[in-house]
Amino acid sequence: MAKQFFIPRGTSDILPSEIPFWQALENTARTICRLYGYQEIRTPIFEETELFARSMGQTSDVVQKQMLRVLAGPRDFQETLQNSEDSLAGVLRPEGTAAIVRSYIENDFDKRESLSKLFYMGAMFRGERPQKGRLRQFHQIGVEAIGPSSSSPYLDADVIALSVNLLKACGLTNFKLKINTLGTLENKKAFYELLKRKLQPQLTELCEDCQQRFERNVLRILDCKNEKCRTIVRQTSFGRDWLTQDSQNYFNAVKQALDMLNIVFEDDPYLVRGLDYYTHTVFEISDSSLGSQDALGAGGRYNNLVSELGGPQVDAVGFALGMERILLAQQGKNKPCDSFIDVFIIAMDAQYTKNAFLLLQEVRRCNLSADMSYQAGSLKSQMRLANKLSARFVMILGEDEIKNQEVTLKNMQNGMQEKIALNSIREKLDKLKIER
Amino acid sequence: MAKQFFIPRGTSDILPSEIPFWQALENTARTICRLYGYQEIRTPIFEETELFARSMGQTSDVVQKQMLRVLAGPRDFQETLQNSEDSLAGVLRPEGTAAIVRSYIENDFDKRESLSKLFYMGAMFRGERPQKGRLRQFHQIGVEAIGPSSSSPYLDADVIALSVNLLKACGLTNFKLKINTLGTLENKKAFYELLKRKLQPQLTELCEDCQQRFERNVLRILDCKNEKCRTIVRQTSFGRDWLTQDSQNYFNAVKQALDMLNIVFEDDPYLVRGLDYYTHTVFEISDSSLGSQDALGAGGRYNNLVSELGGPQVDAVGFALGMERILLAQQGKNKPCDSFIDVFIIAMDAQYTKNAFLLLQEVRRCNLSADMSYQAGSLKSQMRLANKLSARFVMILGEDEIKNQEVTLKNMQNGMQEKIALNSIREKLDKLKIER
Repeated sequence: MAKQFFIPRGTSDILPSEIPFWQALENTARTICRLYGYQEIRTPIFEETELFARSMGQTSDVVQKQMLRVLAGPRDFQETLQNSEDSLAGVLRPEGTAAIVRSYIENDFDKRESLSKLFYMGAMFRGERPQKGRLRQFHQIGVEAIGPSSSSPYLDADVIALSVNLLKACGLTNFKLKINTLGTLENKKAFYELLKRKLQPQLTELCEDCQQRFERNVLRILDCKNEKCRTIVRQTSFGRDWLTQDSQNYFNAVKQALDMLNIVFEDDPYLVRGLDYYTHTVFEISDSSLGSQDALGAGGRYNNLVSELGGPQVDAVGFALGMERILLAQQGKNKPCDSFIDVFIIAMDAQYTKNAFLLLQEVRRCNLSADMSYQAGSLKSQMRLANKLSARFVMILGEDEIKNQEVTLKNMQNGMQEKIALNSIREKLDKLKIER
Repeated sequence: MAKQFFIPRGTSDILPSEIPFWQALENTARTICRLYGYQEIRTPIFEETELFARSMGQTSDVVQKQMLRVLAGPRDFQETLQNSEDSLAGVLRPEGTAAIVRSYIENDFDKRESLSKLFYMGAMFRGERPQKGRLRQFHQIGVEAIGPSSSSPYLDADVIALSVNLLKACGLTNFKLKINTLGTLENKKAFYELLKRKLQPQLTELCEDCQQRFERNVLRILDCKNEKCRTIVRQTSFGRDWLTQDSQNYFNAVKQALDMLNIVFEDDPYLVRGLDYYTHTVFEISDSSLGSQDALGAGGRYNNLVSELGGPQVDAVGFALGMERILLAQQGKNKPCDSFIDVFIIAMDAQYTKNAFLLLQEVRRCNLSADMSYQAGSLKSQMRLANKLSARFVMILGEDEIKNQEVTLKNMQNGMQEKIALNSIREKLDKLKIER
């Protein structure tokens, strides 16, 4: 027996039965993004390795442990992994922002417009140990507003409102929005120092990872899921005095704008984001129905990333939502999908397959979806097929029908049957189309 | 100055200006595939390495030289390519068929339905030396009809008709369809022997690659682009006596069915496909406007692949079309895209930005796309922005408008201006929507 093949671990097939939910989500996202003035952009599946090291931070878990590298070069599959002619083509993108920024810079968007509003949908990749809710290939919807005139509290609020309204349009209602500010890069540095001073006394009580984070990037201690670390963090208060007045004003204006839009949020001073590039506003949306991996998405402002990646000094704000997470949170809230096929055509005998085949094309020409069993079979087996495909109508071609130049049309919803002359089939089909 | 980043070679960004053409192509493909009773399926970007070696043939160029491997494992980016903890996660898929078949087998499609009609759209990858028309990341639309009852000449003709009608629906008219048959696996073996006998006398005159192909897979000599090899091949005739009668009958029935559908084709006995898995009908569609890389797509029947990959003995037929090739062939035939933004809102003074921001949400609530400059600016600069976004309407909020609780609405197509009371804005917006 031949070798069996399996899907790579941490990935999934999206089967035809799941496709309608994905398509509905994508259509909703496209509609809402367009409503807010965002245009779609698509970047390659892999990018230069260093792009993400630079954008997400050399010390981030993603860059340290979770990159999936792409190697080009001839090889014998039985041999060792590496070949002298191998070359690194890049890494599978772990997130969307850095690639969009790379494209923004490379294509001189800043020379053409003062504010670029871009959105994307697609596969992202992380080489993490696969577990529930954490896939090697997952999918995100994201938006990025980038440009010299992108620093406005109204834009921050608009971007947050877009993500909230997108989730609402997906039928989600139980999610929770948290916001915080990290201020400018200088404010962030002051915050790091303050955090270190405050956490120093309890350093040895923190988990091993956090003890390393204390040196590498103390902010990430606030993100630790360890219960002990969380308790220590929550018992420490750091206020917002480390923010400059301008940064405080900016954050207050964002909150006022959200109030104007009746967007409910929680101001959470403990909220930070795992990526180095955020400045000022950060936000996170979670849904408790998702369990321990409860984040639907997150985002924030990143005013220094474009210049960090070799581009002009322009500001930016954006977010990304996890598509698998949204679909998981939607479960049970979705309507079943509609009938798939309009017309299924049945030939009562092998000699009429040819007639059925021609009729098939005729039906499709009227923009109705149509199918048939391409091989001869009993009426019963063909009716079973029609039922499996949830056909709205069945057309039957038997001896009588062929002789009389007609076709039997059966409505599968109410069981009614009628004979239609072949020369009036177009009018009948047009009527079926309207009733759909 | 910070390091500049560039897109990986052999890949491209799809920028907002190109997106409408991609979306139109995807929508057309979805519509036509649905009309023909095909359901969408999505498989991961990478798959187990051996899947493609088994399906495409160990000796194929793709498997020998063009695979992009995906490696998981921690690493320091400055270090050597390989790390002892590295593990091969798979290879980026070079084509769609093998992955669809893997999913068909793994998900027991054959136990649920006698014929599975699946289609896919997405990125494919080959590590070839990048050149015009040959990308490392490219995109394909493909369909596969797989199942115990899929061996019918009508289904072969239907699949060919689907690909032809999809291209027609994309506005293409100059393409050329060639078909051929390879018969059963046994017929193919007889054909190999015949080819070897016929080509043996001129073996030394063939190119180096073809001399190797002569031993490894003589069929591929018929595919060689070398002028000398082509001449030798075209001077050799091999007839179709190596086909069994059944295979000949099957092929004749396919051709008759195509005639019934008025599908124009050329019967080309020199047409073979580079992949090992084809049996019986093979076809190729080319468009001379594309130059030397003139194939729009190709397909055929593969009755042994499912069992080869560890599945049941079921037959199958399918095709794949290159999306970049279709878009290239469409060039100049496409209509310009529609206006992007419905309404652009202008605040005449920074103090009215807040009012503009609220109006923005009001417009979007009526399902009209809306945008604004989130920072204050002159009327002139904001009008320039509105023009750049091809806004259909501009709404202006100045001192008078705020005082009188109204807004100035300017139609950007005809230049007409009118004042609208804020409390009747919803009705006005609903009217704008209908006119769109």
